[in-house]
Amino acid sequence: MAEVTLYHWEPNANSGKPMLALAEKGVAFDSHYLDLLNFDQHDPDYLKINPAGTIPAMTHGSRMLTESTAMMEYVDETFPGPKLMPADPVDRWRVRWWMKFMDQWLAPSFSMLGWSEFIGPAVRSRDPDVLKARIERIPMEERRVAWRKAIYNQFSEEELAESRRRCAIGTAMLEDELSKRAWIGSNDYSLADANGFNLAYIIPLGQPHLANDEKTPHLMEWLRKIYERPATQEIWTLSRVERMRTRVKFLAREAA
Amino acid sequence: MAEVTLYHWEPNANSGKPMLALAEKGVAFDSHYLDLLNFDQHDPDYLKINPAGTIPAMTHGSRMLTESTAMMEYVDETFPGPKLMPADPVDRWRVRWWMKFMDQWLAPSFSMLGWSEFIGPAVRSRDPDVLKARIERIPMEERRVAWRKAIYNQFSEEELAESRRRCAIGTAMLEDELSKRAWIGSNDYSLADANGFNLAYIIPLGQPHLANDEKTPHLMEWLRKIYERPATQEIWTLSRVERMRTRVKFLAREAA
Repeated sequence: MAEVTLYHWEPNANSGKPMLALAEKGVAFDSHYLDLLNFDQHDPDYLKINPAGTIPAMTHGSRMLTESTAMMEYVDETFPGPKLMPADPVDRWRVRWWMKFMDQWLAPSFSMLGWSEFIGPAVRSRDPDVLKARIERIPMEERRVAWRKAIYNQFSEEELAESRRRCAIGTAMLEDELSKRAWIGSNDYSLADANGFNLAYIIPLGQPHLANDEKTPHLMEWLRKIYERPATQEIWTLSRVERMRTRVKFLAREAA
Repeated sequence: MAEVTLYHWEPNANSGKPMLALAEKGVAFDSHYLDLLNFDQHDPDYLKINPAGTIPAMTHGSRMLTESTAMMEYVDETFPGPKLMPADPVDRWRVRWWMKFMDQWLAPSFSMLGWSEFIGPAVRSRDPDVLKARIERIPMEERRVAWRKAIYNQFSEEELAESRRRCAIGTAMLEDELSKRAWIGSNDYSLADANGFNLAYIIPLGQPHLANDEKTPHLMEWLRKIYERPATQEIWTLSRVERMRTRVKFLAREAA
């Protein structure tokens, strides 16, 4: 049994953040997969570990940690292995600036579109009474509201338009930043790259008019470079949703 | 001329975060006060410094930094003086967990109530054509939307109720956490205390049913302890809004 147990869904978005950080550091962890589409994260057994019913969560010895970005900094500061934060204070500020932007601005927009287009439809066909019961047991009121919106398709056209607007702006900002240097926050791979990859790999798939080789060449190169890293390859072996595991492969460079 | 210039409004909320961090570290800075109620932050001269038109912003030599939480970590890591982040990784994680919760969950709710009850009414009496022109020059679309809502009182009852619900939960969480230790994130004063004070000092004033000596004694003691710190006293001398400068004094302990 490893010292670290990670409770996670697919190796993307928030779950993918500590997964990538641990894999990059070379830290072995016990993987505890929770099926978000089956609402496993609100199961009474899991609520004993994380009463908020959010994923990811990580236990390290007797300590339980939540919040994926703070968790990544913890992983970087606690374990040996390559440093995933730069040493220079300005670079560190830039990494944190981007993570804040990703978490607070980009992720909610990407997530609304993802819930509207994938997660909602994926669970909507379930037995209505089961769905109702599953929603009722969600501990946090705002998560109940979010799930209801996704399941019953209650996002307003105004909300979706605002999310699409933010995705477009965010994509352009990523491309602009990546035209300045090889990685998003500094000259070396950092937590901001791990954070950003998990959000951004879906853009060329879901919104190919925003991100493609002609329009956003630096973003595409950055995604491919991160995808081919051993840590990224390693965490994607933990994917159990076939559609996701298959689709991410568009980032593989063709054999010469 | 100091090496650091800080562009800020009142010594509370986001502006107060780097102000407190700099003052706690003993770093001299040139104070550049921007009147939020006069929309100074969208003035063309300021947009040359920070094109996003947000406050606070800080220049350190030739470097311009934004985003108040990342800026506080930069201040702590760059300048000598007392450490405002704990050394232990779990404590560091807890400080960051709280700052994330404050920035993403508490601050938007507090801010909506503050805009609805103070900032909106404070600017609403201006010449309508001037207001319209001031809104039009705001660089970020979502800030234009937020200002329109505040000025024309367009927050829905549902939005306000949700903000009040979050304030109540957040206040109870702060009280619970402060019953465990003297400071919010670790056993020593940290950036989380600076961040939290700037948000929470207004609760006993604006929502006395949520925070008072009977219901939240630990929160009240924590606010008073932070208020009497020399750094807090120092930054409040920079306040120019009489109502704010006067009201915060409720935290002064009565002379024996």
